[in-house]
Amino acid sequence: MREFPLVDPGPGEVLVRITMSTICRSDIHSYEGKRPNPCPGILGHEIIGIIEQIGDRVGADMRGSVLEPGDRVTWTEYFFDGECWHRDVLDMPQKCPGIRKYGHDLATEPPHFLGGFAEYCYIQPGTGILKLPDELSDEEATPLNCGVATMVSVTEAAGIDMGDTVVVQGLGLLGLYGCAMAKARGARLVIGLDAVPPRLETARRFGADEVLNVEQVETTTLIEQVRSFCPPDGADVVVEVCGVPGVIPAGLEMLRTGGCYVLGGLVNPDADVTLDANVLLRKWITLKGIHNYHPRHLIQALDFVMGNRHRFPFKDIVDSRFALNELDEAFRRASERSVLRAAIVP
Amino acid sequence: MREFPLVDPGPGEVLVRITMSTICRSDIHSYEGKRPNPCPGILGHEIIGIIEQIGDRVGADMRGSVLEPGDRVTWTEYFFDGECWHRDVLDMPQKCPGIRKYGHDLATEPPHFLGGFAEYCYIQPGTGILKLPDELSDEEATPLNCGVATMVSVTEAAGIDMGDTVVVQGLGLLGLYGCAMAKARGARLVIGLDAVPPRLETARRFGADEVLNVEQVETTTLIEQVRSFCPPDGADVVVEVCGVPGVIPAGLEMLRTGGCYVLGGLVNPDADVTLDANVLLRKWITLKGIHNYHPRHLIQALDFVMGNRHRFPFKDIVDSRFALNELDEAFRRASERSVLRAAIVP
Amino acid sequence: MREFPLVDPGPGEVLVRITMSTICRSDIHSYEGKRPNPCPGILGHEIIGIIEQIGDRVGADMRGSVLEPGDRVTWTEYFFDGECWHRDVLDMPQKCPGIRKYGHDLATEPPHFLGGFAEYCYIQPGTGILKLPDELSDEEATPLNCGVATMVSVTEAAGIDMGDTVVVQGLGLLGLYGCAMAKARGARLVIGLDAVPPRLETARRFGADEVLNVEQVETTTLIEQVRSFCPPDGADVVVEVCGVPGVIPAGLEMLRTGGCYVLGGLVNPDADVTLDANVLLRKWITLKGIHNYHPRHLIQALDFVMGNRHRFPFKDIVDSRFALNELDEAFRRASERSVLRAAIVP
Amino acid sequence: MREFPLVDPGPGEVLVRITMSTICRSDIHSYEGKRPNPCPGILGHEIIGIIEQIGDRVGADMRGSVLEPGDRVTWTEYFFDGECWHRDVLDMPQKCPGIRKYGHDLATEPPHFLGGFAEYCYIQPGTGILKLPDELSDEEATPLNCGVATMVSVTEAAGIDMGDTVVVQGLGLLGLYGCAMAKARGARLVIGLDAVPPRLETARRFGADEVLNVEQVETTTLIEQVRSFCPPDGADVVVEVCGVPGVIPAGLEMLRTGGCYVLGGLVNPDADVTLDANVLLRKWITLKGIHNYHPRHLIQALDFVMGNRHRFPFKDIVDSRFALNELDEAFRRASERSVLRAAIVP
Repeated sequence: MREFPLVDPGPGEVLVRITMSTICRSDIHSYEGKRPNPCPGILGHEIIGIIEQIGDRVGADMRGSVLEPGDRVTWTEYFFDGECWHRDVLDMPQKCPGIRKYGHDLATEPPHFLGGFAEYCYIQPGTGILKLPDELSDEEATPLNCGVATMVSVTEAAGIDMGDTVVVQGLGLLGLYGCAMAKARGARLVIGLDAVPPRLETARRFGADEVLNVEQVETTTLIEQVRSFCPPDGADVVVEVCGVPGVIPAGLEMLRTGGCYVLGGLVNPDADVTLDANVLLRKWITLKGIHNYHPRHLIQALDFVMGNRHRFPFKDIVDSRFALNELDEAFRRASERSVLRAAIVP
Repeated sequence: MREFPLVDPGPGEVLVRITMSTICRSDIHSYEGKRPNPCPGILGHEIIGIIEQIGDRVGADMRGSVLEPGDRVTWTEYFFDGECWHRDVLDMPQKCPGIRKYGHDLATEPPHFLGGFAEYCYIQPGTGILKLPDELSDEEATPLNCGVATMVSVTEAAGIDMGDTVVVQGLGLLGLYGCAMAKARGARLVIGLDAVPPRLETARRFGADEVLNVEQVETTTLIEQVRSFCPPDGADVVVEVCGVPGVIPAGLEMLRTGGCYVLGGLVNPDADVTLDANVLLRKWITLKGIHNYHPRHLIQALDFVMGNRHRFPFKDIVDSRFALNELDEAFRRASERSVLRAAIVP
Repeated sequence: MREFPLVDPGPGEVLVRITMSTICRSDIHSYEGKRPNPCPGILGHEIIGIIEQIGDRVGADMRGSVLEPGDRVTWTEYFFDGECWHRDVLDMPQKCPGIRKYGHDLATEPPHFLGGFAEYCYIQPGTGILKLPDELSDEEATPLNCGVATMVSVTEAAGIDMGDTVVVQGLGLLGLYGCAMAKARGARLVIGLDAVPPRLETARRFGADEVLNVEQVETTTLIEQVRSFCPPDGADVVVEVCGVPGVIPAGLEMLRTGGCYVLGGLVNPDADVTLDANVLLRKWITLKGIHNYHPRHLIQALDFVMGNRHRFPFKDIVDSRFALNELDEAFRRASERSVLRAAIVP
Repeated sequence: MREFPLVDPGPGEVLVRITMSTICRSDIHSYEGKRPNPCPGILGHEIIGIIEQIGDRVGADMRGSVLEPGDRVTWTEYFFDGECWHRDVLDMPQKCPGIRKYGHDLATEPPHFLGGFAEYCYIQPGTGILKLPDELSDEEATPLNCGVATMVSVTEAAGIDMGDTVVVQGLGLLGLYGCAMAKARGARLVIGLDAVPPRLETARRFGADEVLNVEQVETTTLIEQVRSFCPPDGADVVVEVCGVPGVIPAGLEMLRTGGCYVLGGLVNPDADVTLDANVLLRKWITLKGIHNYHPRHLIQALDFVMGNRHRFPFKDIVDSRFALNELDEAFRRASERSVLRAAIVP
């Protein structure tokens, strides 16, 4: 544990006192040295906190609400300040070359505080900030700017329409939000797939109407079972959030003619998969890759959780709290999956 | 050559005297015994003709023009009569289970005449019929109901917008129409790729602004060259119409973030390809398979050729004529590719 | 009350024994002689019933489920058999010229039974039929093929996205389903407007988060109130289902830049309204008219009610039952609005 | 004529030596005192020029090309620097509250040069800049950032598809570009309407297939004539670019069921029009207002002109040149419409 000096926030910056941050799977990879993060650094990008001080030229949050010290806020996990073709022409600010992410910098350089596992964070210019309503608990709010916003992006790309049948491959945090969001967008039937029995049970509480254990049946049987739930021709949408490329061919077989398959979990390189392109062609399938999210998706993520928190138990997802000096213990528990989402409370 | 009796067309049928039909690549496969067609049959689904007699309950063509004997017409290469979820709910009549295609039936059973390489054809109930304007030559009109309509379907799926950069992989008949159609939809730059030098030259006359020989450079160089034509981040659209699954990974590399890849040529089973799904995800790529076309695409195909026939030399595509008794010779020439498109003129 | 002979259903026909039909506002207009219906006729197009006998060539319902005597079914309120540019090219079967509607024919001509206020009905060829699940009560099922399906059509056109703010002008039957459907499509906030206090109260139970009485405040104040609920720039969507053209200008003022206004209730001619077209232009507004629905919307209507019947009290909408010989009484009660929806139970 | 000092461009600014600017209709209104512009000011927002000096933090144009002194450029007619819900959430930067436009400021305040009718202009931070290809003449390039980009925006909103029939109401500068752009997007038939005979003739050279003089026939006849060109049910798209609200009802009557009407010319307040909202509803019409354009539309405007300059005589639109000291004469000629577009060449 190290200490760095706090200074007044510069133009466009906001100084936040962190109230909670959670450990994302990618933090675990960095912690275990599997990702090339600068060291020493402050990991953590799923962060919320209370505004301590506001720099010049910062006026309002993304929705136009005036920001003031004392406001509790979330913010986009990335920031980019400047002009960029991806943002200004394509409306894909999340893909600007040179974009930076919280929790990925050297802590020894100013402003030092750019990650979640610390007492403070300087929100940088080019970040989308969003005020949080009081009734939302820290546990419900912290995952907003990573998993929830990403799933808004993924389910939007899937084009889920009223009455659709939706298959979710993988029932981790992304998958749980995905099941609930599919229902909240009007899906008729959500089918959750995973290999871990407790996850299947949890998914039922998050909107999955049917759950199937992918390890208990042959893949051809699994495909048949899913298709039998979706007459006459298969599922309208399949969403991959398990991170395993090998599930794609079976997912494509589950789709109806004209159906849509969205890749949301394959965030690591070398996710090779062999497909029969003729299947895509004959079935008029649309296959989309989605990575990260647009700033508006963070607003929608908040609206989704606020509008459905009495319908689905979002409060149970962050199921453990650790102090800053228990960080190693928190990482250990998160890594061994004995907790669903570990929160650090400074 | 065999003869069968002509009878009055039944309800919903139209008897047409064929004026031209052309040999499609799939006809060659059937002719060579590589596809399981019933025998004896009348091959050929790219057909136009003049209405000889009209059955009961046939009133107008797809555009609402009254049909009369003496009208020259084209029609959808497939027919489906009845109710069907794919048509009535999904608006995908081209995918109704049990749909039938001209040129695929046993000639010994009534109505005998359901293919192109004959003097007559009975247009069946559930076929979309379209009157042809007089100024259009038979050579320009015959490919409408197969290659041209398919490419309307493919380029619509690609979502080509004003100013887009479009790569066409494969410059056969589909590719040539694809280049011209991309320009006619407002593309800024069309890049044609093929391994056959004369095709590259022909493509220039059909709207390709740049052509590259895929066999003369390494794939990585090819990708770089294409990307250098499409600053700052690669092509907006890549269209596959070469029938070779191995070209897909390079095509994906050519795309910009958020770009669209359409599969249009991989009509044969077992088109296996290995992809890095992480590339699709990180680049927000949309990959679509398109097969066959909606009846409205046939109308658009006609409008496209009528509106652009002085801009692109569509009349040169059907470049040879054979009589019915020269059918074997026509198939030989088409098979060895010494003609671009062989026409049979009864 | 008159009797007509029952015969076997012809090809494509299905004979149904009616279990419930409800009185729509348009039936009241016809009953009161304000609409030119042929006489004597059997009014009523909101009908469900049990299949008694199935004619030739009828196989499955719209979803592909095999139909059998004893199945309880709903069906599209209109039918059209034949080919038509509006259906085959535009995918708008509901707008085919010559389309016919149940409850609009002379009862003295065969097949006599084409309306709801009778013991039997012959479902005609070109009707979309849909099987009903057992758990759905007749009261929940009968409005599906008119009001519910129309509101699927209207809310789809509105493009309601996760987190949207939606204003519903008019809280009759269409408005109540509209409020619930906006929530079921992910709306963050639904604001209901009406002049009748009990309707405002009912709307709260159907998903309206805020309700405003349009007669208790000046229009400028009303606009300000609505806009204050939708920071920073107004509502994303406004839906008109009150049938009063004069509400449109205020509705447009409630919208944000780039918002969408859908007309759903102005089904009568001469709905003149004066607009400032410059407001539409400067605010980039999209204004859409929607009338009737596509067959797929009936499927979605069923899925919507099935998926949300424990969330919203759809069962309370049909709040009264009358026998066939109490039809006059039922019309009287419906006309004076002392019941919300009157059901006829033969 | 007054002189102001030139200084080095500040951060994010670019100093341009103007090579041409043109007089827009709105400049004439300001010149005639009908619009409240600050005085003394430098009017003119349709400007191109050559980069003289580049301030800090300016790297590349909108397409990512590095900017250097000597580059000839066009730029968005508006600028907005900072964060804004309209830009960051809605992707509508052109509608940010507080947005500023070139040609609308007091010239006595630094940086003095913010309008077209001068020797220099300081491009401000938050402007989209675009390099111009050498082969494009100044006359072809100057209208890009106003009329051409606006019509990209308008015709995009119209959703013109291959084979569509498009009616253009008003054949001034916007209408001429509109006709050409409809063809370049694949329209089958473009019908131009105006009351000024020479405009009708000019429109033919810009892609109008049919032109009708709206003053020579009754409106009902005009509607019938247009509809007869667009069987079976009327035009797919009608675009208003004449600035007269009274033309809207006739335009709506010209549309097919499901057609789209775009308002593009009604830029002045109090454009009252009385519509029958029931017509919109029964015909499923979409009516959209479009004002100004997104930065990407300026890129598309350039691509459109570059791709079609040998097809349509864009070079003839700017048909007169005046020196800066002939500005009054230029305004007189533009005002009396004895020139199509007057250019000021410093």
